[in-house]
Amino acid sequence: MAGNSFGNIFRITTWGESHGKALGVVLDGVPAGLALCEEDIQVFLDRRKPGQSDISTPRKEDDLVEILSGVFEGKTTGTSLSMLVRNTSQKSRDYSQIADCYRPGHADYTFDEKYGLHDYRGGGRSSGRETIGRVAAGAVASKILKEMGIDVYAYTTAIGPVSIDRTHFDRASISQTSTAMPDMATNDEAVAYLKKAREHYDSVGGVMECTVMGLPAGIGDPVFEKLDANLAKAIMSIGAVKAVEIGDGCSVSARFGSENNDAFFADEDGIHKRTNHSGGTLGGISDGAPLIVRAYVKPTPSIFQTQNTVNRAGENIEIAIKGRHDPIIVPRAVVVMESMTAITILDALLMNMSARLDRIVDFYGSL
Amino acid sequence: MAGNSFGNIFRITTWGESHGKALGVVLDGVPAGLALCEEDIQVFLDRRKPGQSDISTPRKEDDLVEILSGVFEGKTTGTSLSMLVRNTSQKSRDYSQIADCYRPGHADYTFDEKYGLHDYRGGGRSSGRETIGRVAAGAVASKILKEMGIDVYAYTTAIGPVSIDRTHFDRASISQTSTAMPDMATNDEAVAYLKKAREHYDSVGGVMECTVMGLPAGIGDPVFEKLDANLAKAIMSIGAVKAVEIGDGCSVSARFGSENNDAFFADEDGIHKRTNHSGGTLGGISDGAPLIVRAYVKPTPSIFQTQNTVNRAGENIEIAIKGRHDPIIVPRAVVVMESMTAITILDALLMNMSARLDRIVDFYGSL
Amino acid sequence: MAGNSFGNIFRITTWGESHGKALGVVLDGVPAGLALCEEDIQVFLDRRKPGQSDISTPRKEDDLVEILSGVFEGKTTGTSLSMLVRNTSQKSRDYSQIADCYRPGHADYTFDEKYGLHDYRGGGRSSGRETIGRVAAGAVASKILKEMGIDVYAYTTAIGPVSIDRTHFDRASISQTSTAMPDMATNDEAVAYLKKAREHYDSVGGVMECTVMGLPAGIGDPVFEKLDANLAKAIMSIGAVKAVEIGDGCSVSARFGSENNDAFFADEDGIHKRTNHSGGTLGGISDGAPLIVRAYVKPTPSIFQTQNTVNRAGENIEIAIKGRHDPIIVPRAVVVMESMTAITILDALLMNMSARLDRIVDFYGSL
Amino acid sequence: MAGNSFGNIFRITTWGESHGKALGVVLDGVPAGLALCEEDIQVFLDRRKPGQSDISTPRKEDDLVEILSGVFEGKTTGTSLSMLVRNTSQKSRDYSQIADCYRPGHADYTFDEKYGLHDYRGGGRSSGRETIGRVAAGAVASKILKEMGIDVYAYTTAIGPVSIDRTHFDRASISQTSTAMPDMATNDEAVAYLKKAREHYDSVGGVMECTVMGLPAGIGDPVFEKLDANLAKAIMSIGAVKAVEIGDGCSVSARFGSENNDAFFADEDGIHKRTNHSGGTLGGISDGAPLIVRAYVKPTPSIFQTQNTVNRAGENIEIAIKGRHDPIIVPRAVVVMESMTAITILDALLMNMSARLDRIVDFYGSL
Repeated sequence: MAGNSFGNIFRITTWGESHGKALGVVLDGVPAGLALCEEDIQVFLDRRKPGQSDISTPRKEDDLVEILSGVFEGKTTGTSLSMLVRNTSQKSRDYSQIADCYRPGHADYTFDEKYGLHDYRGGGRSSGRETIGRVAAGAVASKILKEMGIDVYAYTTAIGPVSIDRTHFDRASISQTSTAMPDMATNDEAVAYLKKAREHYDSVGGVMECTVMGLPAGIGDPVFEKLDANLAKAIMSIGAVKAVEIGDGCSVSARFGSENNDAFFADEDGIHKRTNHSGGTLGGISDGAPLIVRAYVKPTPSIFQTQNTVNRAGENIEIAIKGRHDPIIVPRAVVVMESMTAITILDALLMNMSARLDRIVDFYGSL
Repeated sequence: MAGNSFGNIFRITTWGESHGKALGVVLDGVPAGLALCEEDIQVFLDRRKPGQSDISTPRKEDDLVEILSGVFEGKTTGTSLSMLVRNTSQKSRDYSQIADCYRPGHADYTFDEKYGLHDYRGGGRSSGRETIGRVAAGAVASKILKEMGIDVYAYTTAIGPVSIDRTHFDRASISQTSTAMPDMATNDEAVAYLKKAREHYDSVGGVMECTVMGLPAGIGDPVFEKLDANLAKAIMSIGAVKAVEIGDGCSVSARFGSENNDAFFADEDGIHKRTNHSGGTLGGISDGAPLIVRAYVKPTPSIFQTQNTVNRAGENIEIAIKGRHDPIIVPRAVVVMESMTAITILDALLMNMSARLDRIVDFYGSL
Repeated sequence: MAGNSFGNIFRITTWGESHGKALGVVLDGVPAGLALCEEDIQVFLDRRKPGQSDISTPRKEDDLVEILSGVFEGKTTGTSLSMLVRNTSQKSRDYSQIADCYRPGHADYTFDEKYGLHDYRGGGRSSGRETIGRVAAGAVASKILKEMGIDVYAYTTAIGPVSIDRTHFDRASISQTSTAMPDMATNDEAVAYLKKAREHYDSVGGVMECTVMGLPAGIGDPVFEKLDANLAKAIMSIGAVKAVEIGDGCSVSARFGSENNDAFFADEDGIHKRTNHSGGTLGGISDGAPLIVRAYVKPTPSIFQTQNTVNRAGENIEIAIKGRHDPIIVPRAVVVMESMTAITILDALLMNMSARLDRIVDFYGSL
Repeated sequence: MAGNSFGNIFRITTWGESHGKALGVVLDGVPAGLALCEEDIQVFLDRRKPGQSDISTPRKEDDLVEILSGVFEGKTTGTSLSMLVRNTSQKSRDYSQIADCYRPGHADYTFDEKYGLHDYRGGGRSSGRETIGRVAAGAVASKILKEMGIDVYAYTTAIGPVSIDRTHFDRASISQTSTAMPDMATNDEAVAYLKKAREHYDSVGGVMECTVMGLPAGIGDPVFEKLDANLAKAIMSIGAVKAVEIGDGCSVSARFGSENNDAFFADEDGIHKRTNHSGGTLGGISDGAPLIVRAYVKPTPSIFQTQNTVNRAGENIEIAIKGRHDPIIVPRAVVVMESMTAITILDALLMNMSARLDRIVDFYGSL
């Protein structure tokens, strides 16, 4: 399957390069009857816009979305929904420096090896601007999930070695801090850390996390379409992510079973777990507890320091990357993670509708 | 897409429950002309067999594979290849203890929520025996990769807190140690650790890793079908895996860009990287360096200690699980990880054949 | 996508060669809770068995099905359902005649061109026995549709130039005539026609039709997943089918719009059409009228007359095919058409469950 | 799988409604290195434009295409290729007549049943304008096929009862006749027939055919992905098509095997068939002979005569459709058939690259 689509029933196909004419996404399988307008999308896109704080690139991009199909009289029609964002700020500049060289940590070399050529303007298809399509689609998925009482939100948990204090978790802070951290105090510390890195012409990595509340138990499929497997793919497909954890993730490997098992208990509201080490899935299927996914992001590969590399002619050269780059990817990637999680969860919910014969018979019997 | 298939061009569909009549796999997209016999498959299956050491369950399972289709006169025909393993040792026992209760850390509850019923005999489809189909398919994928000069091998890197010393890495040890560690000294320490856990009626987690050597640069697709995204899905779909890393994984999040970027250099053999923090991919496409994937595995959820849980009637109960269980999943899961990696890599290689027009024209021009 | 799977949510993967060890199918996406036993499958398989009348091959094949997974305590579990039919009657005979030659009208030559080799025993994967997997899966799909009040039945409408008289349509006759015609008188005429063809060592073609009753309006998707498009693929994929019609099919091309449009009318039961030229679909979506599909089948290519052909060495030769062959494919293919139709319809019904947001919200709200 | 995508490796996703802002397509899996510009696409789109002759609607639509991504410095990059056509001529008119009524032969009713609403402006997504995305994609597929020496061309073979005389087949006429018939004399007769129908406020059906020359033997897959099965789906998915034939199609059902089999023969150029009743496929795989597909198209359902129908309130009403409509669909649909055939063939060719192990090993060995 060609690589620009994601999802089965709710399926997105993205397109566009950093410095091409436009970027966009086509959504297929959007249920009919959702009230949807461009403003619903724009608020999501604005969260990934650069130039909004002193820790992101000063580049200004308006990234205004246009809905081209699939909505009629303010409601989705069930047919394919196309959205477009024109590239406006990508100024015509001199790319001769990077046109011929393989930037360390970037995909210039691998694209060239694969395709025999690559669009070197701002990274082309491997640019972070590729995520515009994901976020526009994520806005739609999130709105549908909201109608179903399901709440998806992502945030930053670490920038370099500076991690949030979970005892101070404050969801409101996510949209108020330039780091997207849910913890004001740690945000300040992280911003200071970032400024120092920047002074050394360097960049830093970080960690982001997504929580899903309200997901019923029973969602996801056994074996290959496990909810965690699809989330792992969804999140690892975001550029710069190098590790994905579900629930307690890596740390479970050093535990005893007696520590790691989540005990079930029942009360008048139903069945619950006393702990949530599993992060909301058992056997790849949601268990009713909050779903927790975490992603580890590498430092922005574009740095101003001089680096050793190779040009297309195969000669060893030195490069010092110019331009306007984020010193960290994470704060702007948080909404991308949230979007990919929402898309994955929604697709699993739609797929699950045919899991039981009695429910299918009821569904059609009641029409 | 229903959940029992994996891959696009090279595609596997697995089936079977722990205590059903048989388990198996159908492979589609196997190229014609591969010499293949049951012995090729059996050596892989034997690596996941229990009862082979004092750190695995004393259950004996022969797990003899039968090839039912897709091979003619010793060669694959290009049509669907079906393989079957009969369940023979699954003795008819009393399941009344677990039939009605939700074992902590298991999928009994989530299956029930999803399907309204579940095969409670030994975990049914959520049992580790489900991986028989994966491993049988992995044996075929590995044999094809070998014909292409690509070498895939997995091993244990940690059991509980006991980690290998990478300066002592010895590939030959993988098949000689009961832990599948590539390091004899650490193996002995890990075995001692396991025995102690067992004495406390407990289980432990661990870490496994897979390395791919010989993969050319340029394999994998941008955006959603990134090589690392598909590997993340492949490996996270293995039961009990809770985190997946590519290359340096989680640790990149605390680094500076100047530390994490892999510098390119050229010599007479072509273009290489001085380091391999990225684990062999850039932008989701292989970069010619060894591909490195790591998986963190939770402790076996079946433990003999008494645990609190709930039964199907929604009553709070206590359970102490009986039966024969591995105190750790990792050593037997190593071949599963190797298999899933091989399947993923092979599929990406086949997909990549149509990436460039000139190569397509050459391919058909030379027939 | 490799070629041995069909369907999206309800998805089948078939395997097996004419003279291999066995044939079978894996079903994925079977809803949990369907009462199912081997007898349900066997009655379908028995309808495609040879040796049941004087107009089919005298070969005897028992074709006993075994369910290997996916059913527990008499009910489907929602996990992959594997079924197997062992080849028993395929006697070890001398294939030297056909091993090296390309039989006219068969796939020997095209398989060799594609794969570089082919299983020449009885046609291998291109044999009509390939349909065993389709029919076993069709039995499951039909049983599910029956639970939903949907009735799928196929029958023969012509053998050579001998066509049924639709004014005498009698559904009960389908299972009583050796031709599977719903018209006793025409059956007798057709049998006489077949005997004469056989005396001339020749074979004949025919036409088969499938009707679906009880399908609600609104099933199928616009554009590429039109119900008629998927039926066309499903039916054209049956070996020997060379044309597929929906409703009045070919004959609409010579009509005026005023003749061909089906007028809508409303009564107390809802909206209906006065005629059904469209065959039950409008814009690829079911319109509530009976769904009608028709398939035109070529004569059995295996004939006893001497034919000119070529061998694998590229030499012009003559061949007179020996063995036991049906003089006509249609009567045994009727159940294959019914199966493929049932699978296609069921998949469209499951896909349709996520078409409207309000129904999705209701579905999850009522759990 | 949601319904707006077609193809596996070469995969298109279309979007857009008749009177929405725009229509378009995203192509995935386009091989890198194809020289491509908007003019390549425009010549295809111009063939489906209305208002070009006295037998098509006088509506004027410019349908100018814009390539938004996937092309860099005049060559395809291998990443997703997005194309857009703005709707310009769709004037804001009064839809109150059709907003509330179900036009006979149209999809208004079935869309309403499926989605609970529909875009009634000009048919919305079920309009013939939906095919703009198919044709834009078909232009790309055809250009790639041309590089491989494969020639795909479609034409009209009948309008109402007026059929071409195949002994006068003249390919040059296809682009010179307003009917797209390859036969000038029959074209004149057909035009006269159409005019008469129009005088009676009526519409007519017709037949179109597509030929593929230069396709090597061995393309297509056995069982479900047969070349003819995928063509049947591709062509039946075009609105108004009610029957699809491969080769001699329906007529084979009345033949004897001895008449219908195509004899093979060998000469110095290789293996050929004396006749081509099969239409270029055997067992679903191309046999080296010209590939022949035929489609039967219903009369345009929009006619000016008064018809009985039902409105959304479920009341019986009369309707006489106003507006500008083609009296026949076929001449403008010919390029759609050609496009869908090209897309299907190309996808099968790309899929076939991994059919044989030795060719895979050679492919990677030679890089």
